[in-house]
Amino acid sequence: MSNPIRNDAEKILKTLKRNEGKFVSIKEMAESSCLPRFNLYQSIGKLREWGYAIESEKGKGYCLNQTTDLLFSAEIKDGLKTKILGKEIHSYHTLKSTNLLAYKLAETGSAEGTLVISEKQTAGKGRMGRSWFSPSKTGLWMSLVLRPDIPPSKMPGLSICAGLALVQTVQKLFGLEAKIKWPNDCLIGERKFAGILMELSAEIDQVRFAVMGVGINANQKRMDFPSDIRKKTTSIRIELGEKVSRLELLKHFLVGFEKIYLGFVGKGLAGYRQEIKRRSSLLNRGVKVKFGDKSIIGTAVDIDDNGSLVVKTKTGVEAVAAGEVSLL
Amino acid sequence: MSNPIRNDAEKILKTLKRNEGKFVSIKEMAESSCLPRFNLYQSIGKLREWGYAIESEKGKGYCLNQTTDLLFSAEIKDGLKTKILGKEIHSYHTLKSTNLLAYKLAETGSAEGTLVISEKQTAGKGRMGRSWFSPSKTGLWMSLVLRPDIPPSKMPGLSICAGLALVQTVQKLFGLEAKIKWPNDCLIGERKFAGILMELSAEIDQVRFAVMGVGINANQKRMDFPSDIRKKTTSIRIELGEKVSRLELLKHFLVGFEKIYLGFVGKGLAGYRQEIKRRSSLLNRGVKVKFGDKSIIGTAVDIDDNGSLVVKTKTGVEAVAAGEVSLL
Repeated sequence: MSNPIRNDAEKILKTLKRNEGKFVSIKEMAESSCLPRFNLYQSIGKLREWGYAIESEKGKGYCLNQTTDLLFSAEIKDGLKTKILGKEIHSYHTLKSTNLLAYKLAETGSAEGTLVISEKQTAGKGRMGRSWFSPSKTGLWMSLVLRPDIPPSKMPGLSICAGLALVQTVQKLFGLEAKIKWPNDCLIGERKFAGILMELSAEIDQVRFAVMGVGINANQKRMDFPSDIRKKTTSIRIELGEKVSRLELLKHFLVGFEKIYLGFVGKGLAGYRQEIKRRSSLLNRGVKVKFGDKSIIGTAVDIDDNGSLVVKTKTGVEAVAAGEVSLL
Repeated sequence: MSNPIRNDAEKILKTLKRNEGKFVSIKEMAESSCLPRFNLYQSIGKLREWGYAIESEKGKGYCLNQTTDLLFSAEIKDGLKTKILGKEIHSYHTLKSTNLLAYKLAETGSAEGTLVISEKQTAGKGRMGRSWFSPSKTGLWMSLVLRPDIPPSKMPGLSICAGLALVQTVQKLFGLEAKIKWPNDCLIGERKFAGILMELSAEIDQVRFAVMGVGINANQKRMDFPSDIRKKTTSIRIELGEKVSRLELLKHFLVGFEKIYLGFVGKGLAGYRQEIKRRSSLLNRGVKVKFGDKSIIGTAVDIDDNGSLVVKTKTGVEAVAAGEVSLL
């Protein structure tokens, strides 16, 4: 899992970013990074290969001229205004699945807020063992280690809080009207652009840790999506008509979610319910909800304080904690 | 974790048990166990050391004369009438914690029903990070890997089902009136003799696996317990006045629990509710229930279909999914 070249490059990048637009001598870089010269040259080569514009001049050293939108820890931490989330970052070029690694990190004691992020996932996970299409450098594929002091029964509410933070962020940054599709998707129009996969380890009345996977289609073009999901899927770029900064989106999401997360853990879902309902794609619509081997048909009328979807059926009213919804 | 001497001994034990009371030649043992002679002699030595009465006679071989109450896989499987539970057994002389190993096995794909059992735990786990006193060869310290197709919110019910199976087994085998202390203890009189520690890995609406730890004080004497827990703790031996067969208790519990488990996963808790209520130590008594940073005081009036304890307080009726109960 460790990645020495990337780790070295992170150190050099940090120094170059701190001196953005100015030349930094080889000596200075070697001192601040504690890296031997060979690794230093190798790291600069790698950063250039990855897309960083690094000028060099004999006798003056190296100068970073222009930032990119790559998901390096140094880039994410730069100006990140959170208290907990993203204080520890594990960033990768390629991972099987950010949830998989975050789960392992959580098991071995990683702090609350630890962020695992990768430019690409080769086996991105969706809900119920499904896969999540995670191509390189176009989306945000990330997982957060959370340690909320709540029982497992409250977890559906947390998943919805993440959706709320995300649609609010997308609205604020890009002016796009995004919706929460209970329990774990985010839509623009009727198309999915993001999903949340919550995994947890718990005792019966106490979550030990949760791993919250968030996948956001940021910069895919229509033809980037495999044909079988193209109709139901979209990206922020497609909807907005231009590329967006993934780093900006990520940082704003982390700040927005942190606020809601702390409120939710402290006081529950009630304070967010009206906003969640306002941004729900299902309310007052005919739905079929599958859960376990059961399914019900009716009208989605509410999302309650547990985060359950309340469905009015012919025979009464039923609150469902989580399931698969299709519109009628 | 692997234990080659114990594994070899298991093979020899199996052959000797199959021929109980009869002599088995060295040649036959070597053939049926596929072990070299050195390992064979070593295994017999170990089995004797562990307490097996194995007679030997020149030219005739070895003969197992008398069974013991040791928790070897071969002993547990002998006559075990289950369909799922204990089909795969990992038995140990010493483990840190059976739950810890079972959780690892579950994560790496071990089948439903896999049993981990140890004569002794050096770091036995109780609920909420507490420890569980697990001395050698006096109790049953075990964990089962379960893969129930239920949401995490139903897990408290499963914990109670395990308690029900255990108190029924103790009643049937030893005629002792045992009670379920919601949510996860079993009592004789007001003293605890067993506890259940349920751990789970899940998505928000689907348990991936559960590890059900069961600790049963079978053959401890009063003075075996540390003084700080002596007053609140008991064993079956103390209550019955004689040593019991741990193997018999284990096998009957596995059969009893399997039946309830399959019923619960298929049809829920409703069918067991009356029996659970009848065997509950809390109903119609004044209780204080702590859950999270909240606590309520009232009378325990019901256990509902979710396995929640229903408490009638001054201001109304509240159902608690899991918590810490003390009697008023």
